[in-house]
Amino acid sequence: MQNFDYQTPTRLIFGRGVIGKLPSVMAQFGKKVLLTYGGGSIKRIGLYQKVMELLKGYQIVELGGIQPNPKYDPSVLEGVRLCKEHKIDVILSVGGGSVLDCSKVIAAGACYDGDPWDLITRKAKTTAALPIVDILTLAATGSEYDQFGVISRTETNDKIGYGDRHVYPHTSFLDPEYTFTVSRKQTAAGIADAMNHTIEQYFVEDATLLNDGFCESMLRSLMVNGRKCLENPEDYTARAEMMLACTYGCNGILALGNSESGWPCHGIEHALSAYYDITHGEGLAIITPRWMQHILSERTLPRFVKYGVNVFGIDPSLDGWEIARRSIDETYKFFESIGIPMHLREVGIDESRIGEMAHHIALNEGLEEAYAPLTEEDIRQILLASL
Amino acid sequence: MQNFDYQTPTRLIFGRGVIGKLPSVMAQFGKKVLLTYGGGSIKRIGLYQKVMELLKGYQIVELGGIQPNPKYDPSVLEGVRLCKEHKIDVILSVGGGSVLDCSKVIAAGACYDGDPWDLITRKAKTTAALPIVDILTLAATGSEYDQFGVISRTETNDKIGYGDRHVYPHTSFLDPEYTFTVSRKQTAAGIADAMNHTIEQYFVEDATLLNDGFCESMLRSLMVNGRKCLENPEDYTARAEMMLACTYGCNGILALGNSESGWPCHGIEHALSAYYDITHGEGLAIITPRWMQHILSERTLPRFVKYGVNVFGIDPSLDGWEIARRSIDETYKFFESIGIPMHLREVGIDESRIGEMAHHIALNEGLEEAYAPLTEEDIRQILLASL
Repeated sequence: MQNFDYQTPTRLIFGRGVIGKLPSVMAQFGKKVLLTYGGGSIKRIGLYQKVMELLKGYQIVELGGIQPNPKYDPSVLEGVRLCKEHKIDVILSVGGGSVLDCSKVIAAGACYDGDPWDLITRKAKTTAALPIVDILTLAATGSEYDQFGVISRTETNDKIGYGDRHVYPHTSFLDPEYTFTVSRKQTAAGIADAMNHTIEQYFVEDATLLNDGFCESMLRSLMVNGRKCLENPEDYTARAEMMLACTYGCNGILALGNSESGWPCHGIEHALSAYYDITHGEGLAIITPRWMQHILSERTLPRFVKYGVNVFGIDPSLDGWEIARRSIDETYKFFESIGIPMHLREVGIDESRIGEMAHHIALNEGLEEAYAPLTEEDIRQILLASL
Repeated sequence: MQNFDYQTPTRLIFGRGVIGKLPSVMAQFGKKVLLTYGGGSIKRIGLYQKVMELLKGYQIVELGGIQPNPKYDPSVLEGVRLCKEHKIDVILSVGGGSVLDCSKVIAAGACYDGDPWDLITRKAKTTAALPIVDILTLAATGSEYDQFGVISRTETNDKIGYGDRHVYPHTSFLDPEYTFTVSRKQTAAGIADAMNHTIEQYFVEDATLLNDGFCESMLRSLMVNGRKCLENPEDYTARAEMMLACTYGCNGILALGNSESGWPCHGIEHALSAYYDITHGEGLAIITPRWMQHILSERTLPRFVKYGVNVFGIDPSLDGWEIARRSIDETYKFFESIGIPMHLREVGIDESRIGEMAHHIALNEGLEEAYAPLTEEDIRQILLASL
């Protein structure tokens, strides 16, 4: 078991109607708020109006239009500029993981004198950040309970994960009802995203029995409740359990004491999103079974057997290779069954830039250190198999 | 799924040799430290000496001799007096859950002008507490990652759970090597304690699939690793995984969104410890299977079936009542197999005060509101069955 140093200070306020506590939470900070959001769905569901009503008396500066795979330019740059110009006290992020990821980098950038890109690339250390409160409207990334954000820079095809303890949200409001109107496509992508977060932490060299059980429980819960959310988008209990499960995706609690996995599917998918701006969860769902197939070996076989038996209920008396093969099939079939396009071509990616992407990934993602080390050629093969 | 408001801000520093980080953690506070500990085992294992060496330059006031089932008088009262007299900045708790529980109440009492008993009985609200850092030497209670402490008052046979968000430890140092010398008796009691914490949260009306999986993983891990710790007390990996599992026992993460269980076995055991000062984990192990037997009914049957199948691997094709019966037997046999005395008489409790204890429990523990409501007569029967 590996040593670790762990802390998740975020307060989770979860359930129907919890937004009523927003004023008491916001009262801990000053009166100048940067309100960040995405394409406007928060206005359609009345959440924007509700927030405005609850925050009467606050000076609210808005940064809307934050896109999926949030962009350094303009969103981060504009947000930092607004924070500095208006001497913002607190950021209120209302939306999904992309809005929150972007808000985290803005929060750090607002407390840094140089180019915020220095913080993302770790050229400079984050030493402070504005406090962040969020109201989540999409269950997927786990950003509401972790210290990470992923930012894309279009002109260089970079999509880089940023993380620092200063950007844990202060408080996350999680009302499952706000996810009732999430589309089938985004619901499915959220399920795939959270499942992949779990799988990335499950496939490691020395998992504890405890963590394995937590991860297996996550995967079973996400599949059962994910399906229910798709069948009945207003199934409160299913939306709620999916929302809670997603929350654990990236804050480390599923893998305390395990060795590093390298998060290989994320490393590969980041390039897909950066080059083609596809939906992150869909990219992960496409890559995951191909990555599994590629890394299956004598050494990794026992992990696949455990995965197949405990997550999909495959008969443990079968031959190990057969269990492994079926577990990969089941993974693929589950994603397919919830309506995810399972080929890169279906999301607009052809073979033309695969070599370039494999090179970019090999250079930037450190996957030679992953649980199952991946060279540039390995990555190219996984991408080709995903076409 | 129930609404919840959840936060565990404690930093966990886990693993071999992590005590080297103690100076950097303590540097965040002032120089006046109240060092709390128990019967002196920390001197036998050299930990006391190590702490003194690492904290050269600090003004250290000592409160040793804190007992299991820590006492209001003298420990809490003396600790509060020392904090006020010496204007203590931070409490450093070195020991097991009892020392830490006691330290939490001292931390709150030090910031309160009246009798600290008011805080424990909720006559007064805790509004502040001194910061607490702990170095854990016993895996059991989970106090290192929660906001609770249990304090006994001998003259009134009270053993009362105290809890407040101000007393979360600031940082917990968890080095599994410090648990190598824990006796067989205390190791077994620790396993039983953590298992019961899990069981108390598992038997509820509306558990999520996610929480059920987390709890089942806890129980399997505690049984497998607990046995290994008893077989080889210096098995680092087993001690480490047991230590991590115990950490999750009481901070709520196993039951977010579940309805309240009422913690019935704790309610009953607190009286046993208060009247007879027995080892808490042993009391819980004795009560648990008798409580299970008592509450088994048509209504609770499905919970027992799930428990039996997923925790003990009982054949799911058997009749439900048979699975339930076996699951209770397996629970009993596991505790017995790790050397726990499984009858109250073996720990010095006879029938003489059972009526009195049942009355005390019924009056103080609110178990009529539990998952399976317990009247005074129910409690008396469970106690009689435990003799």
